[in-house]
Amino acid sequence: MEQKDIFHIQISNALPGYMGAALGLLLVFRNNTAYDKWWEARKELGALVNISRNFAIDINGFLPPGSKEKTRIATLLTCFIYALKEHLRNGVKMKDMQELEDADYKIIEQAQHKPSAIANLIMSRIEILWKEKILTDMQQYLLVTKINTLIDICGKCERIRNTPIPIAYGLLLKFFINIYVILLPIGLSHDLGWGALPLEIILYYIMMSIVLTAEEIEEPFGKDLNDLPFDEMAGKMKVNIQEIISYE
Amino acid sequence: MEQKDIFHIQISNALPGYMGAALGLLLVFRNNTAYDKWWEARKELGALVNISRNFAIDINGFLPPGSKEKTRIATLLTCFIYALKEHLRNGVKMKDMQELEDADYKIIEQAQHKPSAIANLIMSRIEILWKEKILTDMQQYLLVTKINTLIDICGKCERIRNTPIPIAYGLLLKFFINIYVILLPIGLSHDLGWGALPLEIILYYIMMSIVLTAEEIEEPFGKDLNDLPFDEMAGKMKVNIQEIISYE
Amino acid sequence: MEQKDIFHIQISNALPGYMGAALGLLLVFRNNTAYDKWWEARKELGALVNISRNFAIDINGFLPPGSKEKTRIATLLTCFIYALKEHLRNGVKMKDMQELEDADYKIIEQAQHKPSAIANLIMSRIEILWKEKILTDMQQYLLVTKINTLIDICGKCERIRNTPIPIAYGLLLKFFINIYVILLPIGLSHDLGWGALPLEIILYYIMMSIVLTAEEIEEPFGKDLNDLPFDEMAGKMKVNIQEIISYE
Amino acid sequence: MEQKDIFHIQISNALPGYMGAALGLLLVFRNNTAYDKWWEARKELGALVNISRNFAIDINGFLPPGSKEKTRIATLLTCFIYALKEHLRNGVKMKDMQELEDADYKIIEQAQHKPSAIANLIMSRIEILWKEKILTDMQQYLLVTKINTLIDICGKCERIRNTPIPIAYGLLLKFFINIYVILLPIGLSHDLGWGALPLEIILYYIMMSIVLTAEEIEEPFGKDLNDLPFDEMAGKMKVNIQEIISYE
Amino acid sequence: MEQKDIFHIQISNALPGYMGAALGLLLVFRNNTAYDKWWEARKELGALVNISRNFAIDINGFLPPGSKEKTRIATLLTCFIYALKEHLRNGVKMKDMQELEDADYKIIEQAQHKPSAIANLIMSRIEILWKEKILTDMQQYLLVTKINTLIDICGKCERIRNTPIPIAYGLLLKFFINIYVILLPIGLSHDLGWGALPLEIILYYIMMSIVLTAEEIEEPFGKDLNDLPFDEMAGKMKVNIQEIISYE
Repeated sequence: MEQKDIFHIQISNALPGYMGAALGLLLVFRNNTAYDKWWEARKELGALVNISRNFAIDINGFLPPGSKEKTRIATLLTCFIYALKEHLRNGVKMKDMQELEDADYKIIEQAQHKPSAIANLIMSRIEILWKEKILTDMQQYLLVTKINTLIDICGKCERIRNTPIPIAYGLLLKFFINIYVILLPIGLSHDLGWGALPLEIILYYIMMSIVLTAEEIEEPFGKDLNDLPFDEMAGKMKVNIQEIISYE
Repeated sequence: MEQKDIFHIQISNALPGYMGAALGLLLVFRNNTAYDKWWEARKELGALVNISRNFAIDINGFLPPGSKEKTRIATLLTCFIYALKEHLRNGVKMKDMQELEDADYKIIEQAQHKPSAIANLIMSRIEILWKEKILTDMQQYLLVTKINTLIDICGKCERIRNTPIPIAYGLLLKFFINIYVILLPIGLSHDLGWGALPLEIILYYIMMSIVLTAEEIEEPFGKDLNDLPFDEMAGKMKVNIQEIISYE
Repeated sequence: MEQKDIFHIQISNALPGYMGAALGLLLVFRNNTAYDKWWEARKELGALVNISRNFAIDINGFLPPGSKEKTRIATLLTCFIYALKEHLRNGVKMKDMQELEDADYKIIEQAQHKPSAIANLIMSRIEILWKEKILTDMQQYLLVTKINTLIDICGKCERIRNTPIPIAYGLLLKFFINIYVILLPIGLSHDLGWGALPLEIILYYIMMSIVLTAEEIEEPFGKDLNDLPFDEMAGKMKVNIQEIISYE
Repeated sequence: MEQKDIFHIQISNALPGYMGAALGLLLVFRNNTAYDKWWEARKELGALVNISRNFAIDINGFLPPGSKEKTRIATLLTCFIYALKEHLRNGVKMKDMQELEDADYKIIEQAQHKPSAIANLIMSRIEILWKEKILTDMQQYLLVTKINTLIDICGKCERIRNTPIPIAYGLLLKFFINIYVILLPIGLSHDLGWGALPLEIILYYIMMSIVLTAEEIEEPFGKDLNDLPFDEMAGKMKVNIQEIISYE
Repeated sequence: MEQKDIFHIQISNALPGYMGAALGLLLVFRNNTAYDKWWEARKELGALVNISRNFAIDINGFLPPGSKEKTRIATLLTCFIYALKEHLRNGVKMKDMQELEDADYKIIEQAQHKPSAIANLIMSRIEILWKEKILTDMQQYLLVTKINTLIDICGKCERIRNTPIPIAYGLLLKFFINIYVILLPIGLSHDLGWGALPLEIILYYIMMSIVLTAEEIEEPFGKDLNDLPFDEMAGKMKVNIQEIISYE
């Protein structure tokens, strides 16, 4: 075993080892932050399920049987869900809003930020009912805090959607992977010759699959296979709200 | 020691090393997310214990001794627990609901989403008591927020049950384990010959046991050994509620 | 250097390396979940300190100077703390309850779940004071939410006490350690001979000390050196409550 | 292969290995704490978006159409956002405050801590409206808790801005990197000669890029590429508030 | 290369490797728990900043201009901050309390637990103002919950100060470091001779610096360089409170 061989063992151990460790830590970090975003998005959709059920139970309990306002608020609530869903994609579709009363429909149509416009409309219904003494102070409070929760959920989903990982990390990671892929064969090829090629392809494939999965996962409001089933959930929420307000 | 030997040392070090590290990180990630789900499920069941005790303490304090409504609401509360338990498995069993009054029983029987139907029934009892001035505004508020908590717990358990790990991760992990098991012997068998076999079996067994444990753990509402003891806990909650409302 | 030697270098590197990494990850996981439990238990005891001070400050502010009810509720609060402490060990000791009024003492004596029975008694005092118009609606609300917090703390401590790590993990970890300890010397002894023995003892000792520490730490309500100083804290809480209600 | 060679293999393995592991753990720790700060800052800005929308929805619902007070409070709210933004940089710019009424402007101009002065002004508007019976107790409560949230967000952003990582860690990390860079070539150069130089440069670059990214990320309120887009967000919040209060 | 050399390569790889990994995990764990404590302490001080501003804004809004009670409560609030600061060190200094009214001063002087005594005094002021109908029910509620928050912050700081890491971990870590330092040279010195000494010193220094930093960091309420700047923050809070209540 000659001096030259030791040199290559060193390089092939040292370079992939140290750079690989640094890359590994960056990949773990990238993966965890992406998953945390995905999971937080899932929690917010769950919170939307809960608040829509609770809102429906509250108005069903507080408003008299057969009240038109009950249906109107329930429709606004359903429209909030559908508006939020498309607001997080390419913009609210007005065809989802067709069950609204005409006056409400026009306001939503002209609004720039449609979810908060719908929340505002629900607020005005609550205030009218409160002024007519159909809702007490305490019931007004219970419903207003639920409107506030709707807005919170909307804002949190927007934050998840609009906040990519800091640019510095994205650049660092891509730069490191490129450097690594360029330098790796220099160390390996001397000893392994062409045998280094499949190894390198596998390593590159693993790294890129983690990066791409992270990029896929951290935008959870689309319609891909890995995205959250918001369409299906919105449909279920609509059915749920309707079932709850039908008990009189 | 010839050139050929160095080649094999390299491969057997490099391939299991780098792929193994990537696999290790994915396995840690898989394991942690599964355990987090299990533990969150356990926390929600604990929250159910707490809210059922607090609900019972509240109605026992607010309603007059011997009140029929007290028993009725306590029964609805117990039924909510049993309904949620089976709702998270294969659907609510109506035989768990037999203590309900007939009118309530029929509504639950026809409801699609039974837990929220029961919460809705509790709400209507509260509203009737409030309209009859047996409950004040503040007491109504205390009980309504507890109904909202019941719905929150239900929604969170549904989220835990219905959200598998993103498909991308599941596929990635299974694909990597297969690749690893196919490539590993190529590197090892040259030097170790048949001696590589037991090592490979042990490694495969370890990896699969972690994956299978994760799959087992992340569905905690069933009846397996590793699932949460929801049946036993529901029984204890029932006894607890009954004991609390028996002090008059 | 012969072929045979390389074989043994391989085995002794490969087997402890890969299995050791898997074991290491499981040990880290075991240790972290145990410590998290311990720390959550410590937080709950801290929450008990805070709620007992706040409860005492509230009743001292709300009730008139020299009120007998103030002392009675403070005694019930102190008994709740002592009852919870022993409830988490081997069951409530009635000798801790001797400062209670006779009527209260008898109820607690017969109760199955003593902490919630005491909370129920505090609730009935609050309701009586409210019906006598000594407490307003808002003050009733402030005290009822504090009773709810007492029950929450009780439930969370019960959860920590009654939830071991999932059986699957416990078994996996013990099984792996045994396998590891059996296989390790096969790899090492050829090269190291009897020199492998102290190394193996040290490794086994390290692993077992982490497992045993985890088992010790995750049951924090006992009286061991590593358990939380609940006895001492309960004594301090009692003194604190008494000092607070003595300012009139 | 002589004794001398083994010595150098040992050193070059041992020193970068053990020190590198320690450095790696410190770098991971440094990176995670910096990112956590950045993400918490992002969450607080999101909370500011939510509270400003909810505040606007509340005052739009509670105050009569065309009310001057509605505009005045909305202006104060907008000014709070702009004041907080510059307060976290180099001090509030009074030119952002020009939409305020003269009396309000003068108070803000003289105030040392401008965001809390603005919150104080909003509070005085709420109290005047409440004394004039335009706001009920419950509506006063809903708005006061929102003012409290504004102050909470301000305090949390100040905490993120003013709390560097403990000095001990900063020193430790810089000291270790220097030691590492000095010692590394001693081990490597014997075997690798000048071949060690590029490896060392790459390792040093990786370490420093992680440290510098962390330093960049953990001060998120500036105007750099990696900072949060507070200017853009403040503009959007202003438009949002105006849109919401324009529905009457 | 003889059999004897392989033996030493094995030992020197195996022993520092496996023990080092175990030590590394324990050091990471030690470091993280210490930092988490430090950061939680920082958060609590931030919460104290927020609650003191909010308390001042509330009393400034609720109480009439020029009210003596406003100044009295603000002084009590400032004293709470100074009392908590020294309570977490060596005991409250009565010279910090000299701005209090005589009656209040005497009560604090005799109290064992001074922060809760001050909170109790604030409570009695609130109750007197409420009985005199200067504060409404809702305003009383807003201020009482803030007193409760003051007590919560006090309790959490006490918890951070009084809870060392479980004894088992402290012992384990010290024991392992000692064993490691004793065994390491046995493995290394054969090959490296005296060359092992500087390596060992560096490794020992790294380990001990992490342990000592952790011990330094986890007691954040003192006056060291690494402690939180509580003195400076208390001064700022005092100025802030005074500024807020000066707007009338």
